[in-house]
This record gives sequence, C-alpha cells and structure tokens, in this order.
Amino acid sequence: MARTRGRRPGGLDTRSAIIAEARRQFGEVGYGPSTLRTIAAAVGVDPRLVLHYFGSKKGLFEASVELPVDPEVVAATVLRAADGDVGTRTAELILSILEDPSRRLVFTGLLRAAVSDPEAAPLIRDILATRILLPIAQAVGTDQPELRAALVASSVVGLAVARHIVGIEPLASASREDLVRALAPVVTHYLRGDWPTSEEPA
Amino acid sequence: MARTRGRRPGGLDTRSAIIAEARRQFGEVGYGPSTLRTIAAAVGVDPRLVLHYFGSKKGLFEASVELPVDPEVVAATVLRAADGDVGTRTAELILSILEDPSRRLVFTGLLRAAVSDPEAAPLIRDILATRILLPIAQAVGTDQPELRAALVASSVVGLAVARHIVGIEPLASASREDLVRALAPVVTHYLRGDWPTSEEPA
Repeated sequence: MARTRGRRPGGLDTRSAIIAEARRQFGEVGYGPSTLRTIAAAVGVDPRLVLHYFGSKKGLFEASVELPVDPEVVAATVLRAADGDVGTRTAELILSILEDPSRRLVFTGLLRAAVSDPEAAPLIRDILATRILLPIAQAVGTDQPELRAALVASSVVGLAVARHIVGIEPLASASREDLVRALAPVVTHYLRGDWPTSEEPA
Repeated sequence: MARTRGRRPGGLDTRSAIIAEARRQFGEVGYGPSTLRTIAAAVGVDPRLVLHYFGSKKGLFEASVELPVDPEVVAATVLRAADGDVGTRTAELILSILEDPSRRLVFTGLLRAAVSDPEAAPLIRDILATRILLPIAQAVGTDQPELRAALVASSVVGLAVARHIVGIEPLASASREDLVRALAPVVTHYLRGDWPTSEEPA
C-alpha cells in the first residue's frame, strides 16, 4: 500500500486501483462527498487520468458497480431465455448486483445518498430505471415501457432498502434462491402483465 | 398561532395540536431530531402531557401517521372483502397512507430517517412489517407469514422511495388508481402465492 502515494503508470493495474478506491469511497463515504479528485488523490494519480478512463464521476460510479449499462447487452442477457422467463432472468440480474458484497455496498451507498442528496437521486433514476430496466421493458414489447421499468425499479429499491439497509427479518436473511423465486413473478407482472393503465377519470 | 406559546387546556383540541406539530416536525425535521420535548415546546404544553396522551415518541409517531396499528382492525379492514381481493384491499390501504399529503410527509420522513438513522430503522420494521402487514399475512393463513409480510413491506418501501423520494417518472405522476391495479397482484402474490420457499442447500 506504500506505493499508493506515488504516481502510478497508466494501464489496467491503475484502472483497477481507481475502481477499488471508488468502491471504497462511494460505499463508505457516500456518493456526494466522493469526487474524482478525492479518489484520484487516494490512488496517487492525476484526476485527469481518472477523467480520461471513466469520462465522469457517473461513469466511474457505473464502472465501480459493474452495472451492465449497455442497453443492448442488458436486453440480450435477460432475453436470451424464452420470453416467459424474462422475470426470472431480470430477478437474477438484480440479485447478482445486490448479492455481491462490494457491488451491493456501492448500490446501497448510492441509495442512501439518493434519499438525502439531490445529486445522487437522478443517478438511481438514470442507471436503474432508464439504462438497465427500460431496455428490458422495451424488448418485452408491451405498452408503457417507462412505467413498467419504473415499477420494476421500485421493487429493486424496496428489496435493497428492506433487506440490506433497514434489515427487515426474515427477508434480510432469506436465501438468494428464495428471493429470485419470490421476485420473478413480480417482475413478470410489471413487465408483461395486462393490468390496465387506462386514463380513466380519477 | 399566537396562542401556541401559551399553556393549553387538555382535551381534544390540544391532542390535535400536538399531532399537527408532530406531523410537521417528523416530516420537516426528521424522526431522529424530533422529540416529545421539542414537539411539546412548540405547542406550548408540558412534555408530560404528550407522554400521557401518546405513551412514547413511537406512539406519537403512529398517531401522527394515523396508521391502523390495531392488528385486528387491520386484518378486519383488509379481509372484509372476499379472500381473492386481499391484494387490492391491502394495496388500497397502503395507497391511502401514501396518497394523503400529511401522512405521506410523515412516512417519507421516517423512511429518510430509517435509511440514515439507526433509531428510526426499527420503527419501519415494527410498524409496517410487524404491526400492519403481519396480521394480514397471518389472517390470509399461508406459510411463512413473516417473510410474506416483509416482502409486501419491501414493495411499499420501494414504491414510496421511487415515487415520492427519488421521483422516478412516470411512476411519480401515475394515478392512484393505476398504482392500485399495478400493486394489487404483487401483494396477492407475496401474501398468497405458492412460490416455494424451501430450505434447499444454497
């Protein structure tokens, strides 16, 4: 760890060190107070190198969660199974993020920030609803994909808060397999269900 | 408002004034920093009177959200319809809390606090999962009512965060009727679905 104060050469090793430090700061310090500058300083590199690698703080955040943010990749991953199984695939994608300790730490850190920090709220919206879930909803091909993606996002957020932040038992200690089984039909319902979304007068 | 500094006589009017002030402080200041003392001071009454009326800060909070915290009343309210409609009844109960501006303010205030304040986290667990939703799950009579109640709680928390705190569109501006229609089958699935919750080796 002594060399973290020295200037690193560019390359994969430096990129990995930046991501590791970003995960630490986003998870422990929070999204708001962590900046390209504080992360670069801890790694011992020029902030411009961080900017060069990741484009922005948001880009660095996405890399640190390893979110599959390419819409086509997401849709292909989730939809490679038969259509009827899209709920399970999506539930597994969600759980793969939440059940990995370091990615969960970043995700829950962002969620904590989104609840109290206006800077972080759009990030939850953009990454979770728009970039991950909207392509899935669009690929499923039902009506109102934006509303469907937002409802799936609400179930992800609720699960993360209830299980990992507030710690409601026995949900907090339920197995990943049980959660996929419980969540998959919910995702399927939100994505494919023919619940009416009419514009009836209230 | 000039009389709020004076000592009030006991009675319904004072009780209402305490609840109104509690809603304001819980919603605007947050659950943690609001105390029986700060609320009593703003109303101009002795903190012991607040304690007398509500028993505890938690009791005052429950009264301020007007949560139906009597398990038998909750179960009776939700289950008075035919069994198959328990999801809709529960969804309506949840939305009746979230769609009322002053009760929503208290609920989202608590949620913000629960995410960052260890003092408030157990309150979400106790009130939402244990006191409101567990009696419903138990009355429905399926297996693992605690897990089912916690999963419904997660969907309530997710809806509140996504719709009212983070503001994910178009969920944030969806109608209450559409939300009941979207949420009801999810609640039904969590409460009554026969998704396996086996203890298979992970």
